[in-house]
Amino acid sequence: MPFTTPFADRLNNVETSAIRELFKLLGKPGIISFAGGFPDSNMFDVDGIREAVNAALTDNPGATLQYGATEGHPPLREQLAQFMASKGARGVAANDLIVTTGSQQALDLLGKTLISPGDKVIVEGPTFLATIQCFRLYGAELITVPVDGEGAQTDRLEALIAEHKPKFVYLIPTFGNPSGALTSLARRQAILQMAVKHDTLIVEDDPYGDLYFGDAPPPSLLALADSVPGARERLVHCGSLSKVLSPGLRVGWMVAPAELLAKATMCKQFSDAHTSTFAQATAEQYLKAGRMPGTLARVRQVYAERARAMCQALRRELGDAIEFVEPQGGLFVWARLTGAGGKVSDGAVFAKKAIEQGVAFVPGAPFYATQPEHATLRLSFATAPIDKIEEGIARLGRAL
Amino acid sequence: MPFTTPFADRLNNVETSAIRELFKLLGKPGIISFAGGFPDSNMFDVDGIREAVNAALTDNPGATLQYGATEGHPPLREQLAQFMASKGARGVAANDLIVTTGSQQALDLLGKTLISPGDKVIVEGPTFLATIQCFRLYGAELITVPVDGEGAQTDRLEALIAEHKPKFVYLIPTFGNPSGALTSLARRQAILQMAVKHDTLIVEDDPYGDLYFGDAPPPSLLALADSVPGARERLVHCGSLSKVLSPGLRVGWMVAPAELLAKATMCKQFSDAHTSTFAQATAEQYLKAGRMPGTLARVRQVYAERARAMCQALRRELGDAIEFVEPQGGLFVWARLTGAGGKVSDGAVFAKKAIEQGVAFVPGAPFYATQPEHATLRLSFATAPIDKIEEGIARLGRAL
Repeated sequence: MPFTTPFADRLNNVETSAIRELFKLLGKPGIISFAGGFPDSNMFDVDGIREAVNAALTDNPGATLQYGATEGHPPLREQLAQFMASKGARGVAANDLIVTTGSQQALDLLGKTLISPGDKVIVEGPTFLATIQCFRLYGAELITVPVDGEGAQTDRLEALIAEHKPKFVYLIPTFGNPSGALTSLARRQAILQMAVKHDTLIVEDDPYGDLYFGDAPPPSLLALADSVPGARERLVHCGSLSKVLSPGLRVGWMVAPAELLAKATMCKQFSDAHTSTFAQATAEQYLKAGRMPGTLARVRQVYAERARAMCQALRRELGDAIEFVEPQGGLFVWARLTGAGGKVSDGAVFAKKAIEQGVAFVPGAPFYATQPEHATLRLSFATAPIDKIEEGIARLGRAL
Repeated sequence: MPFTTPFADRLNNVETSAIRELFKLLGKPGIISFAGGFPDSNMFDVDGIREAVNAALTDNPGATLQYGATEGHPPLREQLAQFMASKGARGVAANDLIVTTGSQQALDLLGKTLISPGDKVIVEGPTFLATIQCFRLYGAELITVPVDGEGAQTDRLEALIAEHKPKFVYLIPTFGNPSGALTSLARRQAILQMAVKHDTLIVEDDPYGDLYFGDAPPPSLLALADSVPGARERLVHCGSLSKVLSPGLRVGWMVAPAELLAKATMCKQFSDAHTSTFAQATAEQYLKAGRMPGTLARVRQVYAERARAMCQALRRELGDAIEFVEPQGGLFVWARLTGAGGKVSDGAVFAKKAIEQGVAFVPGAPFYATQPEHATLRLSFATAPIDKIEEGIARLGRAL
């Protein structure tokens, strides 16, 4: 008996991603995968999280297990404000943020709160795949601003803002997924200035900013906003504990102007009532215990070594058939096939050949909302140990 | 500097509820509150949950803290299928359900997946407030079917289905919030038959079905559906651990036909990626440890005593000025002011007088999507001990 109820019209705007099909192949025995977008489970501070949840269940079991405020568990909001202050965003009070069920939910709430069908939203090309689909479900028409090694090209961005008058601009300025690009300080300042000049809302998604390998990156747009009068009222900042502490907690947060935060809170009430207080109280105890700096230092060191190993192996094994900017943080190498020596230059074709050789990555084209660059690919160095990285890249070389 | 970005058109369909204003008054010292919609924190099995989370972090810390499948943590889906089988729904496999971030998210996913602006949805009058707002955010036009002591009036329901051809019908057949009504077996069978006859999707929301005080209620629509050919393909069932185990986990689930489940899973991917694996693995370990039957027995006994005490006190203190059907389960007494003896007969007016006397409840009118009955009110007996219930109802008597 078939299901006969018609689905909502908005589902016509999205499709199941091509990447999901690829992921089905990852179960093949012996595959080395650079395809994931997640941190290494072996890096999780299991003991620290165990202590945190036990402290939460001892100190205040009622609040840990009961319904909570839609805005978030108040002591976690305090801890998150302090965490952001430690990263340079000093003007953020607990009331300036709401807790979200991962930063994915912040994107969903922005869509629900702001996007009417037909509204334009500017995103980077390439950008996070789930952002593209999330905003399209609300009917957004996406416009792409190109990204280079210094992040979104701000001259192009300003022209696109002037032309399209978008509902908002969505950027991942620090080690973006998939580009890994780091937006320069000068471009960050230019973005904040154009937000004010054109009265345009900017959304800064920042799940990777903590994962830098050498010097700290330039301050977040949020941290810089106080130096540009009027910018703070035109800025949303999404943060996450998923890439450093644990994705399984599903704890993210969103800083936004008060009027927007109130509407997003109302929408969240009808989305999931509130984020798990069990997870929130655990995250709060973890931050309060002061374990985050040590965890961050450990994670940064391991990912830096893996990134370096992957880049060296890529140069050694693929030579001039591939080009990339060595990442200064995050989880990804974003690369482009040059076709040098008549070698394969399409990421999707290469991905199939790679699977045959026992190594997986994600082709880059799906990360573009418009005008895909088919020569691109995304390689995650986060989850494989160095010997597997070297073996995997050697297989890539054979696949080419 | 005001926030100048226009909000999405869909926000025009909802408003911040009148009840939120009332809740602000609950902070007054000494107030006895029957206004909540939540279980008693003192009933939570804190030790059992502590054992469960520690087992999850020991047995499989990676899966507990890492990203997980959007459909849900596979071992939890198995446990939930077994839990439903223990309640009479034997034909449900783990693959027939997805885990949701509380059952509120199941409602949101139904809205996102099914409702186009202008679509009609039939709901009970009265029904769960967050359902009304959730569906309206997606542009639903709500039609009300009246409820009496035996649940939704099925003759009226069939006429409304024939007239309006709704996208779906949303029901809380067992101890509904706020009505507390228990839909009779005959009406349950009639609902399943009309689902098939009119090819109409029925959504059964069942967060309270475990909380019965005497004999078990009639089987859920899900458990009955196998006896009505074609009904299972036209039925969605939403379950929750919030009312018995812990709302703070935010673990609910949705059983639905495969095509609908696939679309809901896609939408969930862009809503919050997946429900907290940390909470899911904890719930799984809790169910696996076999503690649920003991917890259910304890909770049923306490709430049954409180319900009886509240009903006796209401009859004693308010007499013929109030009428209600004594609940056989759930968390609520739903009552109607008769105006007998010239006493107040408007729930909202009475709520204000009650607050002045130091007792709070929720007036009933906001629970109607259309045609509110202003004489109604909802009293929760779940969170106050018996002496407070008696004192609170005595205050209600003085307020009248």
